[in-house]
Amino acid sequence: MATIVFCTVNRTAQSSARRCLNAHFQRVSGVRACPSTHSPPLTSFPGARWFSRFTGVRFVSHGTAGRSTAGRIRRAALALSGAAVVTAAAATAVLVANGNHFQRAEMATRVSQSSAEPEEEEGDILERCRGFMSPPVTDIKVLQGRKEDMKTRMEMLIMQTQADFCRALEKVDGGKFHVDRWKRKEGGGGISCVMQDGDVFEKAGVNVSVVFGNLTEEAAKQMTSRGKVLKGKDGKLPFCAMGVSSVIHPKNPHIPTVHFNYRYFEIEEEDGTKQWWFGGGTDLTPVYVDKEDGFHFHNTLKEACDKHHSQYYPEFKKWCDRYFYIRHRGETRGIGGIFFDDLNSPNQEEVFKFVKSCAGTVVPCYLPIVQKHLNDSFTDEEKNWQQIRRGRYVEFNLVYDRGVKFGLATPGSRIESILMSLPLTTRWEYMHEPAKGSKEAEMMEVFRNPKEWV
Amino acid sequence: MATIVFCTVNRTAQSSARRCLNAHFQRVSGVRACPSTHSPPLTSFPGARWFSRFTGVRFVSHGTAGRSTAGRIRRAALALSGAAVVTAAAATAVLVANGNHFQRAEMATRVSQSSAEPEEEEGDILERCRGFMSPPVTDIKVLQGRKEDMKTRMEMLIMQTQADFCRALEKVDGGKFHVDRWKRKEGGGGISCVMQDGDVFEKAGVNVSVVFGNLTEEAAKQMTSRGKVLKGKDGKLPFCAMGVSSVIHPKNPHIPTVHFNYRYFEIEEEDGTKQWWFGGGTDLTPVYVDKEDGFHFHNTLKEACDKHHSQYYPEFKKWCDRYFYIRHRGETRGIGGIFFDDLNSPNQEEVFKFVKSCAGTVVPCYLPIVQKHLNDSFTDEEKNWQQIRRGRYVEFNLVYDRGVKFGLATPGSRIESILMSLPLTTRWEYMHEPAKGSKEAEMMEVFRNPKEWV
Repeated sequence: MATIVFCTVNRTAQSSARRCLNAHFQRVSGVRACPSTHSPPLTSFPGARWFSRFTGVRFVSHGTAGRSTAGRIRRAALALSGAAVVTAAAATAVLVANGNHFQRAEMATRVSQSSAEPEEEEGDILERCRGFMSPPVTDIKVLQGRKEDMKTRMEMLIMQTQADFCRALEKVDGGKFHVDRWKRKEGGGGISCVMQDGDVFEKAGVNVSVVFGNLTEEAAKQMTSRGKVLKGKDGKLPFCAMGVSSVIHPKNPHIPTVHFNYRYFEIEEEDGTKQWWFGGGTDLTPVYVDKEDGFHFHNTLKEACDKHHSQYYPEFKKWCDRYFYIRHRGETRGIGGIFFDDLNSPNQEEVFKFVKSCAGTVVPCYLPIVQKHLNDSFTDEEKNWQQIRRGRYVEFNLVYDRGVKFGLATPGSRIESILMSLPLTTRWEYMHEPAKGSKEAEMMEVFRNPKEWV
Repeated sequence: MATIVFCTVNRTAQSSARRCLNAHFQRVSGVRACPSTHSPPLTSFPGARWFSRFTGVRFVSHGTAGRSTAGRIRRAALALSGAAVVTAAAATAVLVANGNHFQRAEMATRVSQSSAEPEEEEGDILERCRGFMSPPVTDIKVLQGRKEDMKTRMEMLIMQTQADFCRALEKVDGGKFHVDRWKRKEGGGGISCVMQDGDVFEKAGVNVSVVFGNLTEEAAKQMTSRGKVLKGKDGKLPFCAMGVSSVIHPKNPHIPTVHFNYRYFEIEEEDGTKQWWFGGGTDLTPVYVDKEDGFHFHNTLKEACDKHHSQYYPEFKKWCDRYFYIRHRGETRGIGGIFFDDLNSPNQEEVFKFVKSCAGTVVPCYLPIVQKHLNDSFTDEEKNWQQIRRGRYVEFNLVYDRGVKFGLATPGSRIESILMSLPLTTRWEYMHEPAKGSKEAEMMEVFRNPKEWV
């Protein structure tokens, strides 16, 4: 069992760069990197613990997973190129009512000490909920009554991912997340956690949403990446969409922005058949090239993917570069990561395990990079360059991001949760072009020609 | 003949607020507001002079103008509500190649002293061109060879509007516009004037573009607001699109942002029939309510409109409020002004005269407001509020503006000219809501419920 992500790293010993980063992380955080004997670390760095909680025994071989992956990915990618594509991400992000019920949740001290030990799905739901940033969207009794249902398992996973990530960020920043609960009139709601103008983070948002209700056949068709025509009872199709999504904009230009989103969609046809799929991804947006960071980030994702299917990382890495592409600039938003959608094969259990592995990487992918650059000094010019790249981030999110576009076009959406992803401050300079040979030009070269990091 | 805009104002004596603003302007700029005897002012404030140059004798009655205006406006508005609408504005703004030819034009001292006297269309083309920010897009000999052609008259008008506005802004700021000429591979090009980080203006852009070539029938259909099917020779339709557009973002939060755009479109069918239309508008985006400014701005536009058709101002004012609406926020971008498109009635001459009157108002609409607030002090909180509203400006421009959307989607567009409209700096705060009874809340009330200013 791969208890600790850093153990996994040292065990595989794939790169001196990775060792370097771990050593650095150890130095700045006081966490002892695990030796190759797999001993647990002396201190309980949240990323490590949470990684183990999510990925733990899941990191065994799944030989049957992802049969005919290439064909499915091709089909999905084709479907995604259509104009009317709306993903489950969009649904989870946006089919929401204007919530006016805000509350401050500070439950950090109530995290169960024992919850790291057993497989978390086997733990008591009520006990696990105590560690969340807020009670789950769905009533706990309802969750307890359908423990094995994928809707319950996924809601618990996204709530846990939110809590783990928020706590890790709070620890490094010293600030606290503001927690808003909101309800959707038509069914469901969400929990938005935002930290603004912290010591380390300029703006950090981690959203959960769980929404359900009925879709018209037309809307349902738009919801499926595959554009499949679904038959509903009297034209109506019961659906449920849920997900966790996050964007973190740090102050220091040497700490990259990170984004992730993991989502699940279910829709019921007239004859009772359930269509379901998962989607998600994690991607990094630095403003300066740091090969070590790039390797660490991509390799952490690759290792999670490789446990499930050898084609996942290469395919989803490419998909990510294609998706986070600012077409009118001819450049990517950042240095990518992984992105996938419409994943419903080989079976629900295997795909869920894969998504769980991915969700489990968000802390170990990002926190070591934050720690490494925490005390990096920077100039006004570097801050300025960060602000200009933030402008590009806004351009991508408002012009291309399907979830945002669908959200803004949907009446009753909770706009503040959708646009939480926008940075606190940005800058648009006319005709800005970095000087040849500069560090900024080096970064642009990568945005224009995505590279392989692993 | 309404020589001076301020004369017109005092003559009609509609409001003490207006008198007040003029008196203030007189005080700060040293310009003597005209008494009701219509005497010209003692000094030659550019706005006043240029207003006279553009609108001069045009301010006589046009009794026959705009027959069946209401019906036409309704039809056009309906057409505009469609999803595939692309306007001439879009075409002029974006059908452009990546221009790499930049040049610095500083011709301020060469403005002809006599050009204010005769009807400018009767002046020598070469002489008039000397006052522009750059030589026109079209070769001067070509323009001289087709003096009466609407394409020539409109190109001269947009070049003059650009020069007049840029010079007026330079005068108040003390800085100089940077002038870029760019060419479009397929035909035509443009002139982008940008002043960044000036004393008064954070970012000021004034663009001219004149583009031509062939459209496919499908593209042509998208180009017409009316969605009309046009027949081309071998499927191709020769077209020409041109316009002037500008966005000015000042530093002081008490000076509003202004935007205007005036454009002309021509397309030739298989049988030689020419379809043509004009579009345009001017609108103001303050971040604090100033009734006097609102009245001055709207009334200046209303007076220009009223000379041509009594329904123009009320209809185009409403159209402006509808167009500059940030749907996902349920608020307008600013306090509006006028907006129209697809205007091709009662005849080309009358519509051109109307557009000329409108273009002639940009300096007198805006400069007195800039002068009035030039030395207003402001707090950090007021600056912060301006930055938040700038974020909304970006949301509108990237999510809804048809010209921008079409531009970004068109390969080979000159992105820097299209996105020149974005402010230098912005801010997105999560869940920002002004305190009840605050000046910011008062402004929000106006954005949520557009008011009549005149």
